[in-house]
Amino acid sequence: MNNMIERAADVLATVRVKSPLVHNITNYVTVNDVANVVLAVGASPIMADSVHEAADIAAIASALVINIGTLNERTVPAMVAAGRSANEHNVPVIFDPVGAGASALRNETVDTILMDVRISIMRGNVSEISHIAGLKANTKGVDASSADLGNDSEAIAQQVARDYQCVVAITGPVDIVSDGETTVHINNGHAMMSHITGTGCMATALIGSLAGAGSDMLAAAVGGLGAMGIAGEYAFETQGQLGTGSFRTALIDTLSKMDADRFRSGVRLS
Amino acid sequence: MNNMIERAADVLATVRVKSPLVHNITNYVTVNDVANVVLAVGASPIMADSVHEAADIAAIASALVINIGTLNERTVPAMVAAGRSANEHNVPVIFDPVGAGASALRNETVDTILMDVRISIMRGNVSEISHIAGLKANTKGVDASSADLGNDSEAIAQQVARDYQCVVAITGPVDIVSDGETTVHINNGHAMMSHITGTGCMATALIGSLAGAGSDMLAAAVGGLGAMGIAGEYAFETQGQLGTGSFRTALIDTLSKMDADRFRSGVRLS
Amino acid sequence: MNNMIERAADVLATVRVKSPLVHNITNYVTVNDVANVVLAVGASPIMADSVHEAADIAAIASALVINIGTLNERTVPAMVAAGRSANEHNVPVIFDPVGAGASALRNETVDTILMDVRISIMRGNVSEISHIAGLKANTKGVDASSADLGNDSEAIAQQVARDYQCVVAITGPVDIVSDGETTVHINNGHAMMSHITGTGCMATALIGSLAGAGSDMLAAAVGGLGAMGIAGEYAFETQGQLGTGSFRTALIDTLSKMDADRFRSGVRLS
Repeated sequence: MNNMIERAADVLATVRVKSPLVHNITNYVTVNDVANVVLAVGASPIMADSVHEAADIAAIASALVINIGTLNERTVPAMVAAGRSANEHNVPVIFDPVGAGASALRNETVDTILMDVRISIMRGNVSEISHIAGLKANTKGVDASSADLGNDSEAIAQQVARDYQCVVAITGPVDIVSDGETTVHINNGHAMMSHITGTGCMATALIGSLAGAGSDMLAAAVGGLGAMGIAGEYAFETQGQLGTGSFRTALIDTLSKMDADRFRSGVRLS
Repeated sequence: MNNMIERAADVLATVRVKSPLVHNITNYVTVNDVANVVLAVGASPIMADSVHEAADIAAIASALVINIGTLNERTVPAMVAAGRSANEHNVPVIFDPVGAGASALRNETVDTILMDVRISIMRGNVSEISHIAGLKANTKGVDASSADLGNDSEAIAQQVARDYQCVVAITGPVDIVSDGETTVHINNGHAMMSHITGTGCMATALIGSLAGAGSDMLAAAVGGLGAMGIAGEYAFETQGQLGTGSFRTALIDTLSKMDADRFRSGVRLS
Repeated sequence: MNNMIERAADVLATVRVKSPLVHNITNYVTVNDVANVVLAVGASPIMADSVHEAADIAAIASALVINIGTLNERTVPAMVAAGRSANEHNVPVIFDPVGAGASALRNETVDTILMDVRISIMRGNVSEISHIAGLKANTKGVDASSADLGNDSEAIAQQVARDYQCVVAITGPVDIVSDGETTVHINNGHAMMSHITGTGCMATALIGSLAGAGSDMLAAAVGGLGAMGIAGEYAFETQGQLGTGSFRTALIDTLSKMDADRFRSGVRLS
């Protein structure tokens, strides 16, 4: 795993050097946090969800992040247009299927995006990725169902990675990242991360920031989730006792000071 | 009033046990704060405002919160569809008529929602609820007009509660909650709450979180507003001198540590 | 420059007295920060972006702020309708052409707004205002392009101010404000402001808050940017070492305590 730590640390360091433009079509609930964590690690966020510019912006971006958290009839076509443009211009697409399984609209949108857009990295909780794997998931809302926490995340990540020829990340108490061949477990993070909104969206955007800085998609996913987990641990240690508001501020603080050394010394892979 | 304190404390405690799914169709200004306070008290938020899924999501939710803060031609039909679905599935509907009186669009939307959807709890400032009572209100924007602060909030709350057979909460220096028969005054809160955006929206979402955990709507309204007021007082005491940014963080911190004991010892009803 | 400091300090003080209603049609990324800084300096924000109420709200507002950060086919007509209504009712219009130059949609929208709406104050980074000046800008995304930082901001601001008969503010390491005749340099601020999202949007909204409190548009622009810069410096001094999350909280804290004395003693004009 030392090799993987080095690969991820390298990509993380490159973000501050290259400052990649990260195009996000994302939900309005957590979009401010998403923009702030993208800036915190050294990338440059742009949010543009009109179908009349989505393809143009994706074409000049270094990564495209599609998050369906508050999808609607206006933004879904923009997601598809941006995704196709990204594919044409060799811009990696990171997909966060928020709430997959919770409504017919979400399920149809997931199907459309997976049909029309080539995904480089997909991140979700076990309920969402189980839905994509074709398993009957117990998604209720946007949080992982406790009934799904017993699913075999490793096998599911590997299957979906092979099905869609992409890197799959399933986040939870232990994060799993797989490209179908190599599978990495990330043993970082803190339970308080699930008591604020947006840690999933922020994790996906961090992955997008790293994916925009290099071509090693497995390392981008490991680096993004590792950085997020380390930040969650440190935020809890320093501010967690004050409550979730302070925890969230400390999480962004920590990401803004994250560097390769801190990543190397804090990340725990297996 | 001791009985009412116990009823409200019970519902508040139940939120952390049941973790009800709270469907919010709300404005994009304060939605992040809304999601964070719903999580802070132990409920699970989902924001879904497409007409193509609003009814589906409302059907699986434990409470529906409709907030018209940034209403538009796309989201108003979703509010109505979600509200009808909630009514069909016996999911309580909490309504926040932000800016009622400020524009024809807001007034028509309020009329439509009140006509088509059975409301369990309505929360607004005195200008907004005066408008609904049919009084000539002086609404200018989304904050209560000073000219309306002299209105007889208690009589207005009682009248609207009887007119719409629901619980009505008018928030202000003293919060009034009435179901038309029983009327409760909540003497908590701090003036600094009006110097940050979203305290009204957060209060409504807290009420929704409690309404999703039990069937006692009067207690849900009292519990949500009491918790909010206590949090405002403590946030001011501990962080208020630093300014409104720190105050807001402390407000969410306090809500994340709110429990029945703290509620019982801090709430002041009359 | 002492006269300009006094003029700006006067307008700033008037905001807390008059509490002007500031209508914002703005992006969903930074809208919460925008609302909080408008409140922090004593004004009252309302966000209303439906074409069915935009003109009504603009008519009762004291200032209208149009920010195209996440423009779309639904909100652009609302921007134009609100702008025209503001013009009819002598409400000053403040325009933030976010990402001008980054896509055809943004460029066309900027053209439409400048054609249909009389602007009182325009604020952007050097890439955005260079685009409006008709120069070939290197806009990539929403941040100023490093290639454009060598442009002659002073000459560009003066030219655009004369072309559109308005006050133009170009923000950057040194902020430039010009009405075509008088040009002011504001030597405040801190580099960390570019590491959080929304400082540009917040600056524009502060300018709008001041423009809503008086008729001195040059002083409103200088006062808004000076207050923002002072806040950035103090936030860095007190919280900057913790990271960007704490810095952002401190920035809003400082604005909530800003007054004429602090402005006078902290602002550095040339």
